[in-house]
Amino acid sequence: MTVPKNAFYAQSGGVTAVINASACGVIETARQHSARIGTVYAGRNGILGALREELIDTSLERPEDIAALRHTPAGAFGSCRYKLRGLDENKAEYHRLIDVFAAHDIGYFFYNGGGDSQDTAHKVSLIGERLGYPLTAIGIPKTVDNDLIGTDCCPGFGSVAKYVALSTLEVGFDVRSMAASSTKVFVLEVMGRHAGWIAAASALAARSEDDAPHIILLPEVPFRRDAFLDRVKAVVERVGFCVIVASEGLQDHEGGLLGTLGGADAFGHHQLGGVGPKIAALCREVLGYKYHCAVADYLQRAARHVASAVDVEQAYAVGKAAVEMAIDGYNAVMPVIERLSDEPYRWRVSAVPLDQVANVERTLPAEFIRDDGFGVTPAALRYLSPLIQGEDHPPWHDGLPQYVSLRNVLVPKRLQQTFEIN
Amino acid sequence: MTVPKNAFYAQSGGVTAVINASACGVIETARQHSARIGTVYAGRNGILGALREELIDTSLERPEDIAALRHTPAGAFGSCRYKLRGLDENKAEYHRLIDVFAAHDIGYFFYNGGGDSQDTAHKVSLIGERLGYPLTAIGIPKTVDNDLIGTDCCPGFGSVAKYVALSTLEVGFDVRSMAASSTKVFVLEVMGRHAGWIAAASALAARSEDDAPHIILLPEVPFRRDAFLDRVKAVVERVGFCVIVASEGLQDHEGGLLGTLGGADAFGHHQLGGVGPKIAALCREVLGYKYHCAVADYLQRAARHVASAVDVEQAYAVGKAAVEMAIDGYNAVMPVIERLSDEPYRWRVSAVPLDQVANVERTLPAEFIRDDGFGVTPAALRYLSPLIQGEDHPPWHDGLPQYVSLRNVLVPKRLQQTFEIN
Repeated sequence: MTVPKNAFYAQSGGVTAVINASACGVIETARQHSARIGTVYAGRNGILGALREELIDTSLERPEDIAALRHTPAGAFGSCRYKLRGLDENKAEYHRLIDVFAAHDIGYFFYNGGGDSQDTAHKVSLIGERLGYPLTAIGIPKTVDNDLIGTDCCPGFGSVAKYVALSTLEVGFDVRSMAASSTKVFVLEVMGRHAGWIAAASALAARSEDDAPHIILLPEVPFRRDAFLDRVKAVVERVGFCVIVASEGLQDHEGGLLGTLGGADAFGHHQLGGVGPKIAALCREVLGYKYHCAVADYLQRAARHVASAVDVEQAYAVGKAAVEMAIDGYNAVMPVIERLSDEPYRWRVSAVPLDQVANVERTLPAEFIRDDGFGVTPAALRYLSPLIQGEDHPPWHDGLPQYVSLRNVLVPKRLQQTFEIN
Repeated sequence: MTVPKNAFYAQSGGVTAVINASACGVIETARQHSARIGTVYAGRNGILGALREELIDTSLERPEDIAALRHTPAGAFGSCRYKLRGLDENKAEYHRLIDVFAAHDIGYFFYNGGGDSQDTAHKVSLIGERLGYPLTAIGIPKTVDNDLIGTDCCPGFGSVAKYVALSTLEVGFDVRSMAASSTKVFVLEVMGRHAGWIAAASALAARSEDDAPHIILLPEVPFRRDAFLDRVKAVVERVGFCVIVASEGLQDHEGGLLGTLGGADAFGHHQLGGVGPKIAALCREVLGYKYHCAVADYLQRAARHVASAVDVEQAYAVGKAAVEMAIDGYNAVMPVIERLSDEPYRWRVSAVPLDQVANVERTLPAEFIRDDGFGVTPAALRYLSPLIQGEDHPPWHDGLPQYVSLRNVLVPKRLQQTFEIN
């Protein structure tokens, strides 16, 4: 009988509506395997928590609070934007991690994040081999951007896709009501710096050609000002109004970001506009249309109240699978979603090696982008549709969702030294 | 036994998540009183539909589609931003209305809108007395701004209040997760031209002093740059991050709008937007904090998927009451919500004369604004809390809410003349 080792779990990068469902999957599954895994320590603010020896003792949280993570958005333990450098560039960081892990008898490392974070997970997985500290490192996928390779989709994406499709649907009804005497152009700016998955998901709102969204602007397609304006005009003249969904990462032909191009906008705003306000203002400037513009920003990724049930289930499943893989002796892998069929939608969890997923971004494939560049293909809709299915309503209390805030009690430090993070 | 007269119903001004629930209340109630009210004709795009003789025959809609209006956002018949001038200024418009009403045997006029629209309803109510055409005119309150007087609250407001409180709650969880190494300041820009009701509702998200929103910027309180920045800094230093909810109508000390885009709508209102990004950029410029900013714009008022059950019920109730009042012989009144108690929340519908509500805006009373000007008082929370209670989930299908689009068949025109709207 092996003596159980403790586990370290951390959340990394931009949070999502369902990353806590993965945490829930990790912690609940680890609790079921107490013969193999002792306490799950969560990093306070991600990997920074490990470097600073700020470890949250999740065993002090009540089972019902851990269960409530499944319906609570954002990162319950705090996340971080911090990337470990290479083993050879900054060996001190890795020695520090080993010191902290050894001091707290940690033998499992679960890292919940996107491409950059899987790079960190991969580097940590080399600790055993390179620095002689036995450690099982498992990545857990998470990103609203859906840009990880090796997995059919990324937990976090389905819920933001549902939010964006829903918002496009609702705002389409709104603008249609107003267009006769007021707003003709509406722009919704959504996330997606290099990949247009989120903007593409808005297409799920349309039941016919005349429904919103009428134009989708993807970072994969360089912005063509004149073609865009022609299209807006044609749509307004045909339908009466035009709803545009624009990726924040929209680029011009030279690869410059539209959101950071040019100086002041047409209306004397000294403030830098994002892509959405710029695109909208352009429509008024050139075509004379009254416009409105929404920038969803964090709202889209925090909107747990409209999470996709499929997404919640998958987020939980990859957390659970990570623990099971660790127990089964895997190392340096990431559980991923494998799609078995579109309709009916069937999927299972499988595993890919971390070194294959670290630092690679998956953009929209060409066959998902319509020839005119202003929308997506039926193949894209077939891919996207299953990911937004089902509602997973959180419990509501007093008019608002009942999200949990954990106690987050830190384990007493055992190391004398602090560690300077630079 | 009186011969039934037909009714005209129109939606006016900015639409809401529940204005169709009022339409549902009007049409379903009228159908129950067919001995008194014949067909309900809906104006295509509000009062413009009457002027243009574009009348939608709601009797051609299936009962289940009319019922589905209760859970469908925006204006099912189209709304408009158009204000009738005075009887003496543009008598031709009133004569045109009489011609159209007479041609279609219309004896009831139901006008569903905000303060400007109730002014229109009031003017139309004078037709009988001043121009000799017998007409019963009833206003139906609607506005997300909650700025109508004579009513405890406005249908439409409760749902936007719930959306804003919910968004503040969710984004507060998100920013708390990220603040250690990333975003420190988050600004949510919400609607509210002159009245801070919507921004105030964000306060419902906080369970403690350290919860979001940490600062609320109201149009009733002139923006004080230095005091604001001091407060942001103090909050970030105490809590680690700062969530700010800003009214689009925020003004400086000279009464200038901080976020004017230029241009004005048909009611002479300036198109707003830009306060949020400005405020956020200021925090970075002066304090060096990384920020994010969301502009909810139409999303907040179209978000039927998170409508307040109380709001839906009240919206339906005022539509129903409008018809009942018309049948009972009232004229030139508006059914309103009268609050009987805060806790338990009890309310009933009563009536106020239209001439008392037209063109008057109700801003946040002084006793609802905290002394420091950056938040609201417990009295405000007592007022606001009942209005966001309860969920009224729409039916979902294929991952999205199932909203109805009506057939909207126009009645054949009976008049030879068209009418030039200027």
